[in-house]
Amino acid sequence: MGATLVEDVDTLAGLSLVDAAAAVADGSISAVALTEACIARTRRLEPKVNSVIWLDEAGALEAAEAADAARRAGAALGPLHGVPMAHKDMYYKAGQRSSCGSAIRRDFRPTITATVLERLEGAGAVTFGGLNMAEFAQNPTGHNRHYGDCLNPWNEAHITGGSSSGSGAAVAARFAFMALGSDTGGSIRLPASACGVTGLKPTQTRVSRFGVMPLSFSCDNVGPLARSARDCARVMTVMAGHDPKDPTSAKEAVPDYEAALDGDLRGMRIGVPETFFLDGVAPSVLAAMETALDVLRGRGASVTRIKLPLIPELSACSSVVSRCEAAAIHGEWMREYPQDYAVHLSARLFPGYAIPATHYIEALSRRGPLLQEFCRAVFSEFDLLVTPTIATELPTRAETDIDHGPPGTAAKFMAVSNNTRLINYLGLPAISVPCGFDSLGLPVGLQIIGRPFAEARVMQAADAFQRDSDWHLRVPAL
Amino acid sequence: MGATLVEDVDTLAGLSLVDAAAAVADGSISAVALTEACIARTRRLEPKVNSVIWLDEAGALEAAEAADAARRAGAALGPLHGVPMAHKDMYYKAGQRSSCGSAIRRDFRPTITATVLERLEGAGAVTFGGLNMAEFAQNPTGHNRHYGDCLNPWNEAHITGGSSSGSGAAVAARFAFMALGSDTGGSIRLPASACGVTGLKPTQTRVSRFGVMPLSFSCDNVGPLARSARDCARVMTVMAGHDPKDPTSAKEAVPDYEAALDGDLRGMRIGVPETFFLDGVAPSVLAAMETALDVLRGRGASVTRIKLPLIPELSACSSVVSRCEAAAIHGEWMREYPQDYAVHLSARLFPGYAIPATHYIEALSRRGPLLQEFCRAVFSEFDLLVTPTIATELPTRAETDIDHGPPGTAAKFMAVSNNTRLINYLGLPAISVPCGFDSLGLPVGLQIIGRPFAEARVMQAADAFQRDSDWHLRVPAL
Repeated sequence: MGATLVEDVDTLAGLSLVDAAAAVADGSISAVALTEACIARTRRLEPKVNSVIWLDEAGALEAAEAADAARRAGAALGPLHGVPMAHKDMYYKAGQRSSCGSAIRRDFRPTITATVLERLEGAGAVTFGGLNMAEFAQNPTGHNRHYGDCLNPWNEAHITGGSSSGSGAAVAARFAFMALGSDTGGSIRLPASACGVTGLKPTQTRVSRFGVMPLSFSCDNVGPLARSARDCARVMTVMAGHDPKDPTSAKEAVPDYEAALDGDLRGMRIGVPETFFLDGVAPSVLAAMETALDVLRGRGASVTRIKLPLIPELSACSSVVSRCEAAAIHGEWMREYPQDYAVHLSARLFPGYAIPATHYIEALSRRGPLLQEFCRAVFSEFDLLVTPTIATELPTRAETDIDHGPPGTAAKFMAVSNNTRLINYLGLPAISVPCGFDSLGLPVGLQIIGRPFAEARVMQAADAFQRDSDWHLRVPAL
Repeated sequence: MGATLVEDVDTLAGLSLVDAAAAVADGSISAVALTEACIARTRRLEPKVNSVIWLDEAGALEAAEAADAARRAGAALGPLHGVPMAHKDMYYKAGQRSSCGSAIRRDFRPTITATVLERLEGAGAVTFGGLNMAEFAQNPTGHNRHYGDCLNPWNEAHITGGSSSGSGAAVAARFAFMALGSDTGGSIRLPASACGVTGLKPTQTRVSRFGVMPLSFSCDNVGPLARSARDCARVMTVMAGHDPKDPTSAKEAVPDYEAALDGDLRGMRIGVPETFFLDGVAPSVLAAMETALDVLRGRGASVTRIKLPLIPELSACSSVVSRCEAAAIHGEWMREYPQDYAVHLSARLFPGYAIPATHYIEALSRRGPLLQEFCRAVFSEFDLLVTPTIATELPTRAETDIDHGPPGTAAKFMAVSNNTRLINYLGLPAISVPCGFDSLGLPVGLQIIGRPFAEARVMQAADAFQRDSDWHLRVPAL
């Protein structure tokens, strides 16, 4: 690998996932070359982003060699054959370390393997590492006391977004062609937005959660961060669908998501919420969204401002459900290892212990009726909702550092996930695509939200946008 | 109806449900005659049992006449064609009163109809009344401040058991061939036991709960109280099975439960728990159970004493789940109409408001693993568990009257459901069949518990027992 030129490495690592898979499939690039390129680029640039918790170079190269051998032997190749990936360090693989971004699980080695990992590797993917993340997936910024903050590849003073911080940064830095994140309140969409990549949160229950660290059973989702909607579609077609090991996973049939990407948005009715999602919006963010809306209009979509109903109810219920479930999941460890939790995480967990069960039951019970009412009011008139993923300019790590910051820091910290949280309570699919830069030069994300199980439409719109924009092709200078 | 002799009425009302259905089907008795007999007997004896909240004589006779006309016209007849029934007053029928045993819903008229009512009436059943019950189905004794306590037909000083008090009393008094009850902690099995009838609590989710007053979503069950296991099997074959209107209802196929009643218990392994379920057992109750076990042995079953695992865990979790859910369901009314709740009911509901969500989530989360562990430990070695339904002699209403009784009353009140509550948390099917009388002359019930979805086996054992015993044929002298 020492002989590989930096330019070669960067060229290989700069392909899209779909192009990389095609190149391996037609033999023009070997899986070993791709994997070596990803690892070389990671080793070289990782000090500038701190996105990796562990690397398994030997295991990855072995898998890549096997992938190349299978191709040479004429074996049937999966849609991700030979493509190197690394994931948020909370996807269990039997015997492989899975730190969950925590001190408590620093050396945890699960005995089970996540269904999504099995499906990705079954489709030929090569896994080469575990990525940095918020401690137990519980902050929207990417701060991590135990492994160090993940650094935004566009400007290390700024947050990467969380909790899938390493996934956003590693895909932005072109270390990996795709990285799984998880999204309970925005944890895929926020780092996608902040790091300038594409991140999809599927419909609640669309993707199996077996073998994935839980945070809130009601709101957790598995999804991809990648370079484009097309790359996400490729991955989703492999991952989505019922899993007997996760009885909560949906039985709805899985479409060929890539086949839906036709670039044609004629007749697509887009609603842009005027209230709440634009509260405190930065002019540069608003301008980026307006330009993006023009691109969508150019593809045939109609765009209308709307007033969303039910926001106060959704805000109240959403917060109760996720807080109670997180507190329950961490109850035993919080009692045994309180010192191992970062201050900001304890501060988030503590209130969950004081919420009465009746409030939790009410918040859960209202979920179905509220979703129904929301869909009736909104999705009868619109196919998609579009908002900024993060309405403010991207804050710095210092500005949002609750562990050390002055009073007021918590508000800035919470504002980051303002536009994403409610979508998890509703369980809707949503994607964040890069749509420009704010006045500080940090990426701006466009959130596209669909009705339940409308991932295909969400990705179709995102892909149509990416056909006429190049924000997703911009690479941070590292 | 004035011309009908009391003896004729009592003869008709004294048939079993299955015999009554056969007589209507072959034309030897009309549905009208059966319905008139049930209503006449109810009117005559109701003052001694107080089991009825409303009667709909006109509507019932109209339905009975239609049933007779259909038979004469040669229509296909359902398995309950022309059989009169009355149900616990919490099964909604659009436009029909449903008091839920409460002051708050004294004049409530729902706009929906319970799926089980639709299924029963679709099978030809005639509904003639709504039966007394514990207020909002929340006590194990049958006390009711608003409609008066339901009186045990065997001895009015004693409890009927609850919460389906009127269902137990009305079936025992031969007012109805079957009465639906609901069972969240024993509410079908307890009145079945105390009144000397047969009552089945199906597996959790086996029967649709759409249109049924909720008490605890996790532990509520719909089931029949009738004169025999065979009558219950007839009803269950009609009622069980998935209902799209109740997404929690199970999709498992429904067997022909009657076909399973072959009287053959050879090879059936029965476990009799030594601990907990026999704590404080009365000698007369123990003797009745021992005699019953001999009958089961006589049919080929083996009987072994066992020590059940997990009782403390099950007790703790069971109580948390049902208390929190009941408190949540009643939260709004408890704030608005506190004076409308009986003292004993408020006393049961209040603690539910102080339980943290994290405890509730833990109790719910442990349910699956605890059930799995329980089944592995118990049902690998045994097909059925047998216990007394109520271990003590049947207390009086005064002894268990929390609203007016001295300290210590609550303990006696709670002891009534000691042997039934945990079965709801586990979600197992269980039946109570009459198996004798205690030293006070009150009925004793035998509880037969099966593994999940083993209703057929539970009823098979109960039916085999009833082939060689006649406790279920005894009628209280009213």
